[in-house]
Amino acid sequence: MTDRETDQGYEFDRGTTVVARSGEPSVFDAELDGGWRIGKGINGGLLLAIAARALAAELGGGEDGHSDPFSITAYYLSTSTAGPAELRTETLRRGRTVSTGTVSLLQGGEERLRAIATYGDLDRHAAGDIRTSATPPNLPPPEKCVGAELAPPSFVEQAELLSRLDLRLDPDTVGWAMGAPSGRGVIQGWLRMPDGREPDPLLLLLAADALPPTSFDLGIGGWAPTLELTVHVRAKPAPGWLRLVHSTRNFADGYMEEDAEVWDSSGRLVAQSRQLARVRVQR
Amino acid sequence: MTDRETDQGYEFDRGTTVVARSGEPSVFDAELDGGWRIGKGINGGLLLAIAARALAAELGGGEDGHSDPFSITAYYLSTSTAGPAELRTETLRRGRTVSTGTVSLLQGGEERLRAIATYGDLDRHAAGDIRTSATPPNLPPPEKCVGAELAPPSFVEQAELLSRLDLRLDPDTVGWAMGAPSGRGVIQGWLRMPDGREPDPLLLLLAADALPPTSFDLGIGGWAPTLELTVHVRAKPAPGWLRLVHSTRNFADGYMEEDAEVWDSSGRLVAQSRQLARVRVQR
Repeated sequence: MTDRETDQGYEFDRGTTVVARSGEPSVFDAELDGGWRIGKGINGGLLLAIAARALAAELGGGEDGHSDPFSITAYYLSTSTAGPAELRTETLRRGRTVSTGTVSLLQGGEERLRAIATYGDLDRHAAGDIRTSATPPNLPPPEKCVGAELAPPSFVEQAELLSRLDLRLDPDTVGWAMGAPSGRGVIQGWLRMPDGREPDPLLLLLAADALPPTSFDLGIGGWAPTLELTVHVRAKPAPGWLRLVHSTRNFADGYMEEDAEVWDSSGRLVAQSRQLARVRVQR
Repeated sequence: MTDRETDQGYEFDRGTTVVARSGEPSVFDAELDGGWRIGKGINGGLLLAIAARALAAELGGGEDGHSDPFSITAYYLSTSTAGPAELRTETLRRGRTVSTGTVSLLQGGEERLRAIATYGDLDRHAAGDIRTSATPPNLPPPEKCVGAELAPPSFVEQAELLSRLDLRLDPDTVGWAMGAPSGRGVIQGWLRMPDGREPDPLLLLLAADALPPTSFDLGIGGWAPTLELTVHVRAKPAPGWLRLVHSTRNFADGYMEEDAEVWDSSGRLVAQSRQLARVRVQR
């Protein structure tokens, strides 16, 4: 296969590569690429995907290994910067259907995030009993949505991440970019990777944190650093576009929860997430 | 003050007491009371409150200490049973506005849960800018709701916890108890402590996991052990009844997310939570 087809051929896989350190079990090295920067630091969803890749190595080994994140939670401790990072994993419990582990991501000895996750096998229970009352977002087709090329330069400057994503936002939820936020606290759109990398559970972790902060749609400027992010991956996504809905129902006293739904091209809700973000109001 | 008025005078405070082990910093002892049992194990919300109390001791010390959980996440590793438990806490980061720590709860050397949490001072930012689009549940008055005394004995037998709570469920969401689930996946009602113990952030952690599994309202029997539970505490609750709404929007392949909202008597959304539960379908 061509280099393009190897994992290393895709931006996302290059950006989330972890290398087991020889002679040091459960220690991995990664390189944080500044191209995934948003605001001051590296995107929290990408960091979560890096942590998840290290945990997959920790929990996925052996015949009874578990390689798919069912639930993963990260607490962000300090701002990650471009450059080398070290990951240290630990198995908390190895079970028959699921296993749980924890991982720490450090730079220069300073802890950037601590995560816990329960892994399993998403194929094992697939196509079973499904009762989803949630409904996929009603979006105009991607070609009728707003791409990053239409975003204000001042915004793109602070979000190099945008050049790594093919993001198409619903025009009804981008009024904030033109100074007319809807006040509903909802931003939704389409996501795919420009280099053709198809979605998988790891990419869903990025998707859960890929949109601009929903506080923008409340008319509150300023970045919203994540304190805590939990993603529940419920199924392996079908190839093609992902539909994302990010919403907040409770902005209060400088903090907000932000819920995300990720729907795949087959119309299945493949991931749900919630984060607590601190909103630095710019006046 | 009378014994009744001391912390120890209330069931909830007795049930969540942690005692610092002398000579062993960051190690605490607790006694898990079988009266908080639901299904096979001790209620996950109560365990979370015990873990939170240990973390408050770890992170709350000193003038710049942080005593209120802003966000707390627990991963449940094995079934907790009545009897002694040991908690081991660790500070991950001590900051100016928030601090983050982790705690492990063990019984007989076996880890029951691992939690991470970020603590702060809920009074510091209180009464600030609030934009909540969520609306409190529309409930009949408590005297028109369904108390545990009306629950099927077979259900109460499996949930000693119920005798520790004054829980009044909305009649519209208890059809499942009479074999007529609504299929909406929503259970809501009122909660207060029978002994007059007023709500505080710790009690909100219990409230987030106090209702029967929403899968009952989907017509799916069987208990729903929690894999992961995250609670965001957004404000100190006013005294009086709490209003709870638990709902699931995605039951799939034996797992469901369950969202909870906790509203206080002043009509404020004081806590939001989400958990991933494994649903053991009884056929």
